[in-house]
Amino acid sequence: MSVFSEERLKQVREAMAGAGADALVLTHLPNIFYVAGFSGSNAVLLLLGDTAHLFTDGRYTIQAREEAPETQVHIVRTALTEACGELLRGRSARKRLRVGFESSWLNVAEWTRLKKAAGQRIAWKPTSDLVEGIREIKSEAELGVMRQAARVASEVIVEAPEYVRPGVTELQVAAEIDYRMRSKGASGPSFDIIVASGPRSALPHAQPTEKRLQKNELVVLDLGAILRHYCSDLTRTVFLGRAPARIRRWYKAIEQAQEAAHQALRAGVTAGSVDRAARRLLNQHGLGSYFVHSTGHGLGIEIHERPRLGRGQKQVIRAGHIVTLEPGIYVEGVGGMRLEDEVAVHEGGTEVLTNAPRGLLEL
Amino acid sequence: MSVFSEERLKQVREAMAGAGADALVLTHLPNIFYVAGFSGSNAVLLLLGDTAHLFTDGRYTIQAREEAPETQVHIVRTALTEACGELLRGRSARKRLRVGFESSWLNVAEWTRLKKAAGQRIAWKPTSDLVEGIREIKSEAELGVMRQAARVASEVIVEAPEYVRPGVTELQVAAEIDYRMRSKGASGPSFDIIVASGPRSALPHAQPTEKRLQKNELVVLDLGAILRHYCSDLTRTVFLGRAPARIRRWYKAIEQAQEAAHQALRAGVTAGSVDRAARRLLNQHGLGSYFVHSTGHGLGIEIHERPRLGRGQKQVIRAGHIVTLEPGIYVEGVGGMRLEDEVAVHEGGTEVLTNAPRGLLEL
Repeated sequence: MSVFSEERLKQVREAMAGAGADALVLTHLPNIFYVAGFSGSNAVLLLLGDTAHLFTDGRYTIQAREEAPETQVHIVRTALTEACGELLRGRSARKRLRVGFESSWLNVAEWTRLKKAAGQRIAWKPTSDLVEGIREIKSEAELGVMRQAARVASEVIVEAPEYVRPGVTELQVAAEIDYRMRSKGASGPSFDIIVASGPRSALPHAQPTEKRLQKNELVVLDLGAILRHYCSDLTRTVFLGRAPARIRRWYKAIEQAQEAAHQALRAGVTAGSVDRAARRLLNQHGLGSYFVHSTGHGLGIEIHERPRLGRGQKQVIRAGHIVTLEPGIYVEGVGGMRLEDEVAVHEGGTEVLTNAPRGLLEL
Repeated sequence: MSVFSEERLKQVREAMAGAGADALVLTHLPNIFYVAGFSGSNAVLLLLGDTAHLFTDGRYTIQAREEAPETQVHIVRTALTEACGELLRGRSARKRLRVGFESSWLNVAEWTRLKKAAGQRIAWKPTSDLVEGIREIKSEAELGVMRQAARVASEVIVEAPEYVRPGVTELQVAAEIDYRMRSKGASGPSFDIIVASGPRSALPHAQPTEKRLQKNELVVLDLGAILRHYCSDLTRTVFLGRAPARIRRWYKAIEQAQEAAHQALRAGVTAGSVDRAARRLLNQHGLGSYFVHSTGHGLGIEIHERPRLGRGQKQVIRAGHIVTLEPGIYVEGVGGMRLEDEVAVHEGGTEVLTNAPRGLLEL
């Protein structure tokens, strides 16, 4: 990560200066990983104009040195924010400091602790999406890793006929998916795998249960892998048997909605216009009220990143964005279906990262 | 969950009154699940004296109604804190309200949004561990579920000879562990499974990699299952081959350290004294400086809960606590080892929940 993080440190320092800050306290772990390469579960990163300080605990003494060689590592036994605050207090003794912090990733209790330890000679500047705004544009190297992560998910979904059948439980299907992703090199799933069958498929975010799959049911499979710290995300819908006409009609509608969103997706348009394209299509089919979530979201180190492809979102799509397109419909008491793929936006067009057949899987 | 949550609502309202609050805003999802039964990934719970209000988004319309029938469900399109704040604004019109919030689980940005929406007639009271202080004492029903979750982890570790051998990668071992836990009814792992082999075993929180296990190496396996929303946590250390005398001596020391901690663990003692018992034992063996983390932690809906069995912790152990005891030593360049079990504290004694042989596994 060393090469990456040098460039990234530079970008973040520029954004920090742009926000009028002399220093920046990062508390969101994915941001810390992005900027400094440290992947432990407990850290605060302090960027000053010339140095970077990583605060963590004794469990990570060796790992921090290995993963984040460009930082000065502080192994602390107190609260990390307190140690960070004390360093800031020392630095602000001679001249007042303007210090940015991640207002969406610092809780009120830690914020209180940080301020108290840092003392009076600091002007605090809440920042929002400062690192996320850099992270959302993926480099070629990141795109390369995300293609691989997407391929793992795609391969596992192509194998669905081997492990999705009447009689197995939703939990068993989830176990198969997880095992197959890891066997293909994933370090784990990028979110809790969704296997939702029958009426449960009408719950967009259902957790797998002991329920057994039955003939003539819908099954929604929503899965993603983490590969070298980057996420993938993919959904397919299965019908166990020959799907009735109504189900096929609905599925055709979400396929068309996804295609409409894909047509709309390009550098320069707003995120909201991509959402609108999918929504309009489902409205035309009289299914708009069953589409209860956004059309998609960015992803990368986290499963949900900027941009959000939701109603009225004004953010402009740019080359380097990687987003999901995932229209779905959910009818209480009947069932639900969703079709989700990952698409990268390039200067001249788009690239679909998840390559598995898109039709309704009749098994 | 209905029966649980009625009792729990009552307990939380008592704690709320004890903290001098007329209302309480909960933003920590495990606390919301504990109190109201809702397991979705986006929620704010507002407790008033007589009613409970659950704010979530459209993805969870059906699920919220099913899981949290005792709450009034508000499906909102804006920020949840904003909707919650607006309701509080209405309630405070006639009389000023004292409103508690979870200062460790509300970030500065949402806190600002909540205050703005709620208006001037509210006195905000930061609370700390209000629900966690109830959650840490497990009921009989919770203990029953946690016994099952611990059994799943124990069974998987007993099967280690089937899937831990030279030549397989750390990732493959993690895949096997995950698959076996899910096949035994787990909804997933309770944290990222640790499989750390050779010199990597000296990293207490190593993520599994493509590295292949080799003959005459240490392998640390740290795993846990989530079963019906409750976590388990278990660590065993493997030596691939016949362990040299030094490794055996070290392992004997961590076994003794765990036993010392177990002897010290009972209702009425401080958490710090349990940690001290393990640490003293390792110091006697000259290994104290290699023990870089705490002796253990509570667990339940979350993998890390109160109490923390760390240096100088003054919290008093009570019946109903369920904690890990997990001494370990980590020697850079050589390797590491850890032994971890879960123990429930009862009025009259303790109960070990993880039942797998405790010796060094020579495979």
